[in-house]
Amino acid sequence: MDDDALIIDRQPLPAGIPERLAAQLRFVAEADKLKTVLRASPLAAAERRENDAEHSWHLALMVILLAEYADEPIDVGHAMRLVVIHDLVEIYAGDSPVFVPGADGDQQEREAAAADRLFGLLPPDQAGEMRALWDEFEAGLTPEARFGKAMDRLEPMLLNWLAGGGTWGMPGASEAAVRAREAGVVAASTSLGDVAGLLVDEGLRRGWIRP
Amino acid sequence: MDDDALIIDRQPLPAGIPERLAAQLRFVAEADKLKTVLRASPLAAAERRENDAEHSWHLALMVILLAEYADEPIDVGHAMRLVVIHDLVEIYAGDSPVFVPGADGDQQEREAAAADRLFGLLPPDQAGEMRALWDEFEAGLTPEARFGKAMDRLEPMLLNWLAGGGTWGMPGASEAAVRAREAGVVAASTSLGDVAGLLVDEGLRRGWIRP
Repeated sequence: MDDDALIIDRQPLPAGIPERLAAQLRFVAEADKLKTVLRASPLAAAERRENDAEHSWHLALMVILLAEYADEPIDVGHAMRLVVIHDLVEIYAGDSPVFVPGADGDQQEREAAAADRLFGLLPPDQAGEMRALWDEFEAGLTPEARFGKAMDRLEPMLLNWLAGGGTWGMPGASEAAVRAREAGVVAASTSLGDVAGLLVDEGLRRGWIRP
Repeated sequence: MDDDALIIDRQPLPAGIPERLAAQLRFVAEADKLKTVLRASPLAAAERRENDAEHSWHLALMVILLAEYADEPIDVGHAMRLVVIHDLVEIYAGDSPVFVPGADGDQQEREAAAADRLFGLLPPDQAGEMRALWDEFEAGLTPEARFGKAMDRLEPMLLNWLAGGGTWGMPGASEAAVRAREAGVVAASTSLGDVAGLLVDEGLRRGWIRP
């Protein structure tokens, strides 16, 4: 979605709310748009594609349930913060499907511009905190960011498995491209990397992934 | 959704995954159903109702952004855990809209049975942890549970505001019923309780809530 109008402009908040809190609530309202950003991944529970808000929730749940498999100790609360906010910039930048060749052309520039615009709705100190979280996730250099990214790779692999192919059937989904996603799981967790490897091996055997 | 078949039964996991991890992944797959449980609340960003997974994500984001307004100090990571898991039982028990008179008839029994069934998919130690988190949220006796519940009240009030009425127009949405939701915000945060009060006062003035 790239809609110039803020959600809050349709129905401004009542008078009497302190400005800092009003700015935060305008951001909370704008964040509703994440529920309309569709990913390529198919849901397992319904015949439709997943949206970014549902996806982010699923990652947060996986962090809680699977943290024990992180190869380095992680702060679960911090990893949850990272996955909850990691896709927010797609409100303005849109989703860039991983298996569409060239879809990420100017993705980094678009996402950085989206981050400036979106986080700029918040009070400056909190805008800085949110930007730092997003940068941390993107860079993937802390144990929590690596684990969050691993969940971000593993969840769609599981959805593809449950769909009997899913986005593995897309034109850009070569075995090499799928193995590159698997590597993002391996980087944070040997055990979960093994699972990703089994899903890909068996997906190849069943013809769900092109060799 | 009350579907006896587990999602994983449609596409069992490949052989070779240790049983504890396989149980956790079966739970992660089953949790996809939360994306299909519809609430009464209208989205602000699209012409449809909100689902439980999107809602849970929005609460987690609000915990991050609004924790500074908690009247008692909260552990943000713990409050996020509570809101991420708080609606999972609705996968089997369904959503009970708050403004439908009598809709909560046997809600507690249904949700307790759903919790047994759903969390029972997990290894016993983790089933116990998840059940403890859910019980903590439901009881609302810790600062984190109170704050999580406040987010669970405030988010649909904000969506109603943005919709110019939303579920405030439902038959059971008397001023008393709406004020009872407001009280759940006040219980955790004076500042956010003030916002809830302003939304309700102005909603009444505009005729979005029946006096």
